[in-house]
Amino acid sequence: MEKSLQILGIGNAIVDILARVDESFITDHNLIKKAMTLIEADRSAQLYADMPAGREQSGGSVANSVAGIAMLGGRAGYIGKVADDQLGRVFRHDMTANGVTFNSAPLLDAEPTANCLVAITPDAERTMSTYLGACSALSMADIDQSQIADSEIIYIEGYLWDREHAKQACRVAMEMAHAAGTKVAFTLSDAFCVDRYRDDFSQLIDGPIDILFANRDELCSLYQTDDFAEALSMIEGRVTVAAITCGDEGAIILAGGERHLVEALPTAVIDTTGAGDLFAAGFLYGAMNGFDLAKAGQLGTACASLTISQVGPRPEAAALQELLASFA
Amino acid sequence: MEKSLQILGIGNAIVDILARVDESFITDHNLIKKAMTLIEADRSAQLYADMPAGREQSGGSVANSVAGIAMLGGRAGYIGKVADDQLGRVFRHDMTANGVTFNSAPLLDAEPTANCLVAITPDAERTMSTYLGACSALSMADIDQSQIADSEIIYIEGYLWDREHAKQACRVAMEMAHAAGTKVAFTLSDAFCVDRYRDDFSQLIDGPIDILFANRDELCSLYQTDDFAEALSMIEGRVTVAAITCGDEGAIILAGGERHLVEALPTAVIDTTGAGDLFAAGFLYGAMNGFDLAKAGQLGTACASLTISQVGPRPEAAALQELLASFA
Repeated sequence: MEKSLQILGIGNAIVDILARVDESFITDHNLIKKAMTLIEADRSAQLYADMPAGREQSGGSVANSVAGIAMLGGRAGYIGKVADDQLGRVFRHDMTANGVTFNSAPLLDAEPTANCLVAITPDAERTMSTYLGACSALSMADIDQSQIADSEIIYIEGYLWDREHAKQACRVAMEMAHAAGTKVAFTLSDAFCVDRYRDDFSQLIDGPIDILFANRDELCSLYQTDDFAEALSMIEGRVTVAAITCGDEGAIILAGGERHLVEALPTAVIDTTGAGDLFAAGFLYGAMNGFDLAKAGQLGTACASLTISQVGPRPEAAALQELLASFA
Repeated sequence: MEKSLQILGIGNAIVDILARVDESFITDHNLIKKAMTLIEADRSAQLYADMPAGREQSGGSVANSVAGIAMLGGRAGYIGKVADDQLGRVFRHDMTANGVTFNSAPLLDAEPTANCLVAITPDAERTMSTYLGACSALSMADIDQSQIADSEIIYIEGYLWDREHAKQACRVAMEMAHAAGTKVAFTLSDAFCVDRYRDDFSQLIDGPIDILFANRDELCSLYQTDDFAEALSMIEGRVTVAAITCGDEGAIILAGGERHLVEALPTAVIDTTGAGDLFAAGFLYGAMNGFDLAKAGQLGTACASLTISQVGPRPEAAALQELLASFA
């Protein structure tokens, strides 16, 4: 019998605040360029005060991916924690409006909905400073066993390892998934995140993870090498499918002893925010809807190209659907 | 002695929620296309629930204008009411980050910060549904007499007539302005708003208003005629300067018995939100910084063109500054 959801994502539910900055903003504030750094409420308020005027858009890595899958027409769900506040309502609205099943109860009378200050430098790279707020409250109570069993794949982000309760909830979710014949997909999220949880992530790769997403930096961080070819050979065969993105050089899909190279589409790069998330959206949508792995990878890089050609981590549904139609 | 501010705006402080919709969204929800309609909290929640996923950006008509003036390098201030909530902090941040002096105290423990649901149809026109929230609390207490006296021009939006206390505060602000040698600029805001307050606006034109902004529809609504030429001749000589925008046909500046026709710049229209607001920004900035009226009008239409070539009512500061540099 067909399962209700193709993909059930679990992640940090975040609203992005995006603004263009000069390079000096990164250096003056001691930010780690292109990375995601966790910050506390005080630091977030201070950094925001120094940022230029911005635009707000729902974000969160796996949230962007499942929103993309739903906009492409896939059956997607999401588990994540927002507060019962204005940004929480914006996040919930956007997920629901995109067609994502999002049942997680809001956090009441506690920390506000998470925000991510996204500083976009003139080279179109994004540097992210995240205040986790309500996301820190994600726990076992938010994991719905029947929903996991009724999903083809659960998709979890490495960022969740930054909070103990969320990490434990993810471990249990992975166990529930395998008990129910649900596949487990995972993203390494960020090279510094890999650095924080290298042993855990390595064990997950040798354990419950079936499908791994990573970019070149994250994979090199995982194996503590600067040699990408070496890192590729180390991940080969460790998971059923490894989908490795390589920026403007496209992506490499490793599966069943084969390597599929997928080219990136040339595009004017405006803002790289969400590129990897929408690659995962296109790849997972394709893989769940009858595309072979190479073609799924091509849909992934096409979705990523569309994303970086505009501001923010979520392109418009009409643009994604037009792109998908070109694959028919 | 030079006054501290060139322009002090008074308006409804609003955060926009912008989303692309089909034409059917407008008809199905009985919206008045291209107009601004006031709605209550329940209707706003219902309409939002039916809207596609969106993007958020600080808005408000006169707020957009003063933000534009400040981004161009002018000395601008703003009086408007937000709540002490997430969207209120976003609005305040953006004004301050743009360089606008914004001292209005937030509203505590009452209605939330205003939002405007902006439905953008495929023809790039915007249809706006505004929940005024905290804006309804704008009153005399927010008017700073010394700040008005220390401004060259105060700029007030007709939208404020929708709330009794705000309207009275504006009338007093206009009196304070004239007593201090401060000029009064006013925008008719919206053709339906003109319809609601035609007599008041006519009296203001014959009274304290020195500089009037309107578009063709608003001016025709004011004089209850479909004949734009007739409406133009009726406003001529009634105010010191009338700046009338005509969409893709540019603008007409009436002053001292002369008419200056200003062409619009051809551009790919993405979203018309904020076009009139940024015309006013360019025109007022130019007029306050040594441009003759025709050239100020040209800066106005150039700022409007820039605005409609992107999503949302506030283009980026760097783009506005680049545009201004081309006028040197």
